[in-house]
Amino acid sequence: MKVGRVIGNVVSTINHEFFDGERLLVCRLIDGEGDLDDYLICTDVVGAGADEVVLILDEGTSARQVHGVATGPIRSVVVGIVDDIHEAPVGAVS
Amino acid sequence: MKVGRVIGNVVSTINHEFFDGERLLVCRLIDGEGDLDDYLICTDVVGAGADEVVLILDEGTSARQVHGVATGPIRSVVVGIVDDIHEAPVGAVS
Amino acid sequence: MKVGRVIGNVVSTINHEFFDGERLLVCRLIDGEGDLDDYLICTDVVGAGADEVVLILDEGTSARQVHGVATGPIRSVVVGIVDDIHEAPVGAVS
Amino acid sequence: MKVGRVIGNVVSTINHEFFDGERLLVCRLIDGEGDLDDYLICTDVVGAGADEVVLILDEGTSARQVHGVATGPIRSVVVGIVDDIHEAPVGAVS
Amino acid sequence: MKVGRVIGNVVSTINHEFFDGERLLVCRLIDGEGDLDDYLICTDVVGAGADEVVLILDEGTSARQVHGVATGPIRSVVVGIVDDIHEAPVGAVS
Repeated sequence: MKVGRVIGNVVSTINHEFFDGERLLVCRLIDGEGDLDDYLICTDVVGAGADEVVLILDEGTSARQVHGVATGPIRSVVVGIVDDIHEAPVGAVS
Repeated sequence: MKVGRVIGNVVSTINHEFFDGERLLVCRLIDGEGDLDDYLICTDVVGAGADEVVLILDEGTSARQVHGVATGPIRSVVVGIVDDIHEAPVGAVS
Repeated sequence: MKVGRVIGNVVSTINHEFFDGERLLVCRLIDGEGDLDDYLICTDVVGAGADEVVLILDEGTSARQVHGVATGPIRSVVVGIVDDIHEAPVGAVS
Repeated sequence: MKVGRVIGNVVSTINHEFFDGERLLVCRLIDGEGDLDDYLICTDVVGAGADEVVLILDEGTSARQVHGVATGPIRSVVVGIVDDIHEAPVGAVS
Repeated sequence: MKVGRVIGNVVSTINHEFFDGERLLVCRLIDGEGDLDDYLICTDVVGAGADEVVLILDEGTSARQVHGVATGPIRSVVVGIVDDIHEAPVGAVS
């Protein structure tokens, strides 16, 4: 899984019917030091807002499961809101 | 999912029978700042045209589902036409 | 899917039985401007030759389907020969 | 599979129910020469601690299997603790 | 599929039971010009040794099939030993 920051959303009128009523978030991937040079367009099952840091899952089977559908053209989905990324000192996480 | 721009198409005479009658679009991947140094060859289920910005799904299972086939050598498919990529000011998307 | 150019082949004597009698093509990935710094080792179902530009599918399920096998250690396969990559002027592809 | 080093953990309150009670480790990918410029957020089935070097599997089906669930939005999981990465002299591994 | 060179092995005591008795090879990915800046940790079904050039398959379903298991946390596996990578002159491979 990856961590990203919600930087916008995609507006699309003509698309596959799966996307009717689905928000499509533009998520800039980040690491502990800042923004990375990559992004993913994600659906959302946790209600993430602009500038929020989120947990992203980029796998089709998972994405269909969290949306509760057997079929659907989807791969990247926001599955959590990240409160903090804790950089562990040696021995602190155990 | 990713966003791309249709920059051309692939002409292929000898290929797997699945591709008979399918357009193969060359889609340059893009982000909010411009063209990226990557592309995908995609089939299309929404009728995208040249220079249009599109939503791309790059997963085999999804691709076969949107084409309505149980088997088929396919992985990347255009599933939407993008009207706008809205860069959200802080707090604007919620 | 990706586009590549056949630049050679892999000679392997000791391998999984699936590969008995299968050609293993070295395909340099390319885009409209030339060779990219990446490659895939592919099997072939269309009879591609040296220097030919080909359509490559890099997904296990697709690869097993085009080879007509339920099981098999395979992921990348040449599924078409590319006659031309047509860079579209604005409005030309529709 | 990849090798990584546990550098922290993700704190998330609002997320998919699968993650209730699951630790989410931030794993910096490494190779024999040091840290790479990439990371994965992983669940853990072996009890890895901070600064430990771990074996990471990044595939949804595997991840669900090691967690013993049929469905679950998960892809990257720590499946082993690495004691040593042995760089082999010529002929030493056989 | 990719080609790599066996440069070492991973020593791991605490891990998922699948890995009991499995060698874990560190394979540096290569192309026709030399070592690439990437690697994979692979299991092995052909008995590859140090410094050998190998054919690598990086897909979970394939990996489980070649190991003959229905479930197992595995994705990258060595499926062949490469005797030679033949760079084809124009027209030589057909």
